[in-house]
Amino acid sequence: MRTLFFTTVVCLFSIGCTNSGNENDRFARLFSGEARVIDLTHSLNNSSPYWPSLDGNPFKHEIIAAHPSGAAILAAYSTPEHFGTHMDAPIHSADGQATVDQLQAADLFGPAAVVDISAKCESEPDYLLSKNDLLEWEEQYGKLPDGAIVLMYSGWSKKWTDYEAYKNQDEMNRMHFPGFSAEAAHFLVNERNIRGIGIDNFSIDYGLSTDFAVHKIFNGAGKYHLENVANVHLLPAIGAYLIVAPIKIDGGSGGQVRIFAVVP
Amino acid sequence: MRTLFFTTVVCLFSIGCTNSGNENDRFARLFSGEARVIDLTHSLNNSSPYWPSLDGNPFKHEIIAAHPSGAAILAAYSTPEHFGTHMDAPIHSADGQATVDQLQAADLFGPAAVVDISAKCESEPDYLLSKNDLLEWEEQYGKLPDGAIVLMYSGWSKKWTDYEAYKNQDEMNRMHFPGFSAEAAHFLVNERNIRGIGIDNFSIDYGLSTDFAVHKIFNGAGKYHLENVANVHLLPAIGAYLIVAPIKIDGGSGGQVRIFAVVP
Repeated sequence: MRTLFFTTVVCLFSIGCTNSGNENDRFARLFSGEARVIDLTHSLNNSSPYWPSLDGNPFKHEIIAAHPSGAAILAAYSTPEHFGTHMDAPIHSADGQATVDQLQAADLFGPAAVVDISAKCESEPDYLLSKNDLLEWEEQYGKLPDGAIVLMYSGWSKKWTDYEAYKNQDEMNRMHFPGFSAEAAHFLVNERNIRGIGIDNFSIDYGLSTDFAVHKIFNGAGKYHLENVANVHLLPAIGAYLIVAPIKIDGGSGGQVRIFAVVP
Repeated sequence: MRTLFFTTVVCLFSIGCTNSGNENDRFARLFSGEARVIDLTHSLNNSSPYWPSLDGNPFKHEIIAAHPSGAAILAAYSTPEHFGTHMDAPIHSADGQATVDQLQAADLFGPAAVVDISAKCESEPDYLLSKNDLLEWEEQYGKLPDGAIVLMYSGWSKKWTDYEAYKNQDEMNRMHFPGFSAEAAHFLVNERNIRGIGIDNFSIDYGLSTDFAVHKIFNGAGKYHLENVANVHLLPAIGAYLIVAPIKIDGGSGGQVRIFAVVP
């Protein structure tokens, strides 16, 4: 009896401490360099893809002073806020909403939900993520977590270093890349509790959009967008946590963002 | 005997689970918006302090399209990499070391150690943080944690919105603000295991420096610097954890950085 009791208590103790030991490690590992962290940020350079315009590439990085190797000692750059891996702050499409500097850590750190529709997008570059795609995701992985940052993976990030393929313009110069549908946007804003959304191409509105309706739905509801997100294909559908760190510009409509994903 | 045994085991069990319950919460709270997170980043604008030069303020933020309220729909900016709250990547002062885009999360997330020497700096603006200041800190708080990011608090961040006081130039235009001593730098690089350092003023080398010796010691050892760090006075001496998120510029010698401190 005493042996049984002893064994039971030791087992409980071990289970308790194994589970909590893992969780304990989780915070500690994040700050010891042992956590698995994936960088969802494309690095910026003078060849990074830009929204097609007559003015050419608006990003310019210039070395001011260099080492003998040619590496920068000092450099400067100029860029639109909405270039490279960046955030659209809520104000971008909705007057009165938050500017990029007003977003707090509580808005910027949250669980990721990754919706991979790359197979559909491969055959249909004008594909719009539907409400049904989200419901199918929920059937498989459960309800979108509270405060989720919903990342759509279209497969476009693999074209990042091929500008022609990334913008995918037709003979009328219309771009063809996938986006969120208005129906999916309304669903996420009204029927789920999300922090923001992201996409691995130029815009959360698809390439053919002229009214940017989906921008207005999300930003109008105070949600931010992450655009040109990298490495989304390396994330699990559920279980990653995002650290979203935008450049802090007073009154900015958005800006370059560093995004880290902590994965199990 | 059995009662004593039972009590002992239950106590052990409870202690184990209370500690780990807290730790469990710690990771979860970080991504639920409940953690206390302090932003160590000054926001950028056209009046932000700049390293004195004949060319005037090199930071320029311009609104390209505006809402009826005047708020930005789209904006662009140009800036030196080393402006505002920013990082000096190791390459900045040491050819062959890492550029800003090469630093990984394992380099960028770590425990903070805050050395407050603001009282000394108030009476002596040319004060250099000494090895002894670090040893005194260790007497009080224990050895600097492995992988620490050592933040010096000089009190200068409170002058951020007063450019004259922040640069504190004399009649010869020499700046007067505190920094790290070479002795302290050698100690941190050779006798402790740190990720990087930070300071709440223009430069880790004090205002009178002309050779930037301390830059060469830290960068030469592959360590990064954080300069113009905000809100350091809100951190505990020990117990905060930093998330350091620099803009990801290919080959950048540094860049604007968003720094979040998770505090107990």
